[in-house]
Amino acid sequence: MHFEVLCTDLVSRARRGRLKTAHGIIETPVFMPVGTQGTVKATTPSELLEVGAQVILGNTYHLFLRPGLEVIQHSGGLHKFMGWDRPILTDSGGFQVFSLSKLRRITEEGVHFNSHIDGSPCFLNPEISMQVQQTLGSDIVMAFDECPPYPCEYEYAANSLDRTLRWAHRCRAWAELRGNGATPLVFGIVQGGIYQDLREKSARGLVDLDFDGYAIGGVSVGEPEVEMMRAIDNSEPFLPKDKPRYAMGLGTPPQLAEMVARGVDMFDCVLPTRLARNGTAFTGAGTLNLKNATYRTDLRPIEEDCTCSTCRSFTRSYIRHLIKAEEILGLRLITIHNLHFYLNLMTQMRAALDDGTFAQFRENFVANYAKHEPQVAGREAESEE
Amino acid sequence: MHFEVLCTDLVSRARRGRLKTAHGIIETPVFMPVGTQGTVKATTPSELLEVGAQVILGNTYHLFLRPGLEVIQHSGGLHKFMGWDRPILTDSGGFQVFSLSKLRRITEEGVHFNSHIDGSPCFLNPEISMQVQQTLGSDIVMAFDECPPYPCEYEYAANSLDRTLRWAHRCRAWAELRGNGATPLVFGIVQGGIYQDLREKSARGLVDLDFDGYAIGGVSVGEPEVEMMRAIDNSEPFLPKDKPRYAMGLGTPPQLAEMVARGVDMFDCVLPTRLARNGTAFTGAGTLNLKNATYRTDLRPIEEDCTCSTCRSFTRSYIRHLIKAEEILGLRLITIHNLHFYLNLMTQMRAALDDGTFAQFRENFVANYAKHEPQVAGREAESEE
Repeated sequence: MHFEVLCTDLVSRARRGRLKTAHGIIETPVFMPVGTQGTVKATTPSELLEVGAQVILGNTYHLFLRPGLEVIQHSGGLHKFMGWDRPILTDSGGFQVFSLSKLRRITEEGVHFNSHIDGSPCFLNPEISMQVQQTLGSDIVMAFDECPPYPCEYEYAANSLDRTLRWAHRCRAWAELRGNGATPLVFGIVQGGIYQDLREKSARGLVDLDFDGYAIGGVSVGEPEVEMMRAIDNSEPFLPKDKPRYAMGLGTPPQLAEMVARGVDMFDCVLPTRLARNGTAFTGAGTLNLKNATYRTDLRPIEEDCTCSTCRSFTRSYIRHLIKAEEILGLRLITIHNLHFYLNLMTQMRAALDDGTFAQFRENFVANYAKHEPQVAGREAESEE
Repeated sequence: MHFEVLCTDLVSRARRGRLKTAHGIIETPVFMPVGTQGTVKATTPSELLEVGAQVILGNTYHLFLRPGLEVIQHSGGLHKFMGWDRPILTDSGGFQVFSLSKLRRITEEGVHFNSHIDGSPCFLNPEISMQVQQTLGSDIVMAFDECPPYPCEYEYAANSLDRTLRWAHRCRAWAELRGNGATPLVFGIVQGGIYQDLREKSARGLVDLDFDGYAIGGVSVGEPEVEMMRAIDNSEPFLPKDKPRYAMGLGTPPQLAEMVARGVDMFDCVLPTRLARNGTAFTGAGTLNLKNATYRTDLRPIEEDCTCSTCRSFTRSYIRHLIKAEEILGLRLITIHNLHFYLNLMTQMRAALDDGTFAQFRENFVANYAKHEPQVAGREAESEE
């Protein structure tokens, strides 16, 4: 088996697991930095290793459009192209087709759309998405889905879900053709919006297809946190215990702890990198906006006890100056800190699960985290990332 | 003595030297990366050490306006503020006052100008410039000068030069007040434009004031290379052999070799960092524009035998993709390579001087360097850097 649950929490549904991929083992719960265009923004692969990244994301839609498959194939795949030899999970492109491109037309066969870069006509369907992800050399490929908007009427959500299930079937069939047990791992994506019965139907339909893992998708920007947790609660009970669960594009640090407690094993989110570029740093007591005049002569590091390379060497005063002066080093330093913060939070949660102290850790962490962090909870369009 | 000439070339006027500063010894000829706003753009101090930087520049004008002296003083000076514990040379602010600010008014006392950031009225004069540079904790401070435009009528150049000499006198007097032999070192700046007699007058006037070193200034953007070399040739003969000479804001790699051959010991230039941000990389055979479609599937490093961290890990194909996709990592990787290239060129020149093979090195290097590099020879406004 590619996934092993090492232990489960006695109080919550949280699990401590281990996922085997072609490029190595991933300890879960895990946070995956987002590498939309073949780079986690502003970082090198060696910096990602230093902050403790085990696996990163690549985006099929973006890489398909630029630099194009031929270029990446010529390098021997995405790992070699970008110099990252640990696991990569690729999105199917479905989310970006619906969030970024213009003039899309959805048919049973797939989606016609226009590139957000140059407007040229493009087409993606389940088979092409799978083929592209395999060509990229992804370790974990995602089924091609439709991401309905939020809010979304029941009827639209139901029809969209049925089509996404048929597309999931085609993705699974495509993977079967390539041989069972072969890499990459293939994950299905639970949709169904805010509707409990549709989430159940989606999850059951996917489980019948026996995917290697299950994502919970369709939680979008601006959706209230209560809807996020409801989407998890409405999906998770129908997912097999022996397969990894992945909440796509979420969330803030306390939300990660809450979702781990609801049995989610894998996360990705642009918040640590995107907010860094805006001068916002994460700490255990909420976010700091380093543009704030408060930090003008503040000689403390971003976070007092943080062990990241930024906090070991640079003050809030200096980083504030860099951000105000629009110097690249400023966003670099905050990006490193924020990624370290997210990855270290996962390390702490894994250790707490190993020790049987997760309930206490969760309670303390969520309570300490100030309530003033941005209420950006959903998965955003990765081109903005 | 703070400066020692270790050996001189038999053929040219090139010298191999050693400059002692409060933060350590600088082996010359030396290239100094430009850290305009308290950071060499897009790099960390540890990356600067890795590419072999011995000394960097800070800009009085920029740091005076933002973050302001109080903030840097609160950190204990520029070295501590930015986390760089090797030598720093600071510009006097004169060049930027004349190239960046609006509504300036020059009087005998100093220059009234308006901040290019917020338009607020400011004033700099020789004493304030020296005081600011000392407060920054600079190891080498520059006299406050007027930089006349290019081209410039003889009469304007002559009057400007006289004032700059009087200002140099005030800078020297200010430094004397602070005690002889005390840090920082104080350099005068030879002006005089394209006029041979004015360059001589300027150099002789400064030498009478017995500065710790002498810069050759006033070679500006768009000035032909022949004028650059003429400014050196018209100034250098009047400068003492036992003091370092510094060509401000210059130049391309072959120009560095030519200026070393003319007896210049110190250089700074924004070209390696600025061109990196535009996708241009330096090699021994001229520059590469990595946006060019030629490099789309080119799996070679920027330069085949280069030992920098960029060339050890990344292909032209990948870097081209990053630049086209406007990813920060792209300009980071080229910045590191370009700084390494400039600093390694100086290392090679020092070794050739040590070995007595400089003439041969210079001839080979200049011949191999393709003639298609940009003809950007001058010192540009550092805000654009």
